[in-house]
Amino acid sequence: MERIHFKRLPEHIGIIPDGNRRWALAHNKEKHEGYKYGIKPGFELYEICLEYGIKEMTFYGFTQDNTKRPAVQTRAFQEACVEAVMKLADRDANLMVIGNTDSPLFPKELLPFANKRVLFGKGLININFLVNYGWKWDLMNNASKAIPRIDLIIRWGGRRRLSGFLPIQSVYADFYVIDDLWPNFKRNHLDEALLWYQNQDITLGG
Amino acid sequence: MERIHFKRLPEHIGIIPDGNRRWALAHNKEKHEGYKYGIKPGFELYEICLEYGIKEMTFYGFTQDNTKRPAVQTRAFQEACVEAVMKLADRDANLMVIGNTDSPLFPKELLPFANKRVLFGKGLININFLVNYGWKWDLMNNASKAIPRIDLIIRWGGRRRLSGFLPIQSVYADFYVIDDLWPNFKRNHLDEALLWYQNQDITLGG
Repeated sequence: MERIHFKRLPEHIGIIPDGNRRWALAHNKEKHEGYKYGIKPGFELYEICLEYGIKEMTFYGFTQDNTKRPAVQTRAFQEACVEAVMKLADRDANLMVIGNTDSPLFPKELLPFANKRVLFGKGLININFLVNYGWKWDLMNNASKAIPRIDLIIRWGGRRRLSGFLPIQSVYADFYVIDDLWPNFKRNHLDEALLWYQNQDITLGG
Repeated sequence: MERIHFKRLPEHIGIIPDGNRRWALAHNKEKHEGYKYGIKPGFELYEICLEYGIKEMTFYGFTQDNTKRPAVQTRAFQEACVEAVMKLADRDANLMVIGNTDSPLFPKELLPFANKRVLFGKGLININFLVNYGWKWDLMNNASKAIPRIDLIIRWGGRRRLSGFLPIQSVYADFYVIDDLWPNFKRNHLDEALLWYQNQDITLGG
């Protein structure tokens, strides 16, 4: 496959990996089973971003809003987040988990990575992972202050909304929606978003 | 024309009327001349929203970021905002202008309408108008606390970003982009956005 040459790349990409439950239902599984199929796509995306030289990515893990879902779903997305971090520990990244650690809904396995940056391997890319994150909690505590402005937010699963994703870092972000569901991630989704992004003007509200 | 029946309408619509300068250039005018062509579309949209029974609209007038533009443009959009409010005074609306009145960039003609609700005629609809608004200023002062959650944001002019528009009220908002420029507003733009909106699920992040 020929390598795409981008005129301009975002430094920091926000990822809203939506559609795991819809994917599960479409594959005759129960809703909560969808989350574990979201881990492999995350690593595929991480690899491509490393290859492209993206400097920072922020993944929407789960939110305090999400924990109002049935317990079996809450457990499933908590487990998927823990598994993702444990796998990332074998790769190259500067990881920072941001979320409310004062709540029992924050997975205790992730406490060593919370609210500070932890070096895995050679670093190479900053990965921020929002786990038991809440936008009100963030605004009240300035909890995400170590996360910089986001240039491009990509949301899978067709919804055109932020759903509480980092309201401060998102104020000037370009927002690209992929209709396909997150577990169906393909390299082409990212390329399509980046090809669109390179032709957007950057005004920072000016 | 047959009246469209919507299954579900947003209570509160946010309006980002972008593209005035690009419209001006496309019509052999200078950039700053575009703003005054944005007033009539605003009243057309207001009339249709009244007809549909929309309860509240918030218009993005101009921002503190915008005032970094050349002075001739800054004067032109200030004047357009003043003219819009003076014309609205002859209609039915509960107007509230939100913006930083401590700055000389806030048009003094609009001080009587700032940071409180003013009844015009029979009221009928809440109109919020952001004038010399800034998202940082808003977050620091909780300046927009009287504006409720937004259900649907419609942005004209093709850009897919919020550009600092009410970060708190926008966290769960569905975001619809019209590629056409704001001075080319047509009823069909609103209908297209509302037809899309009625099929979105409302989860408030859950």
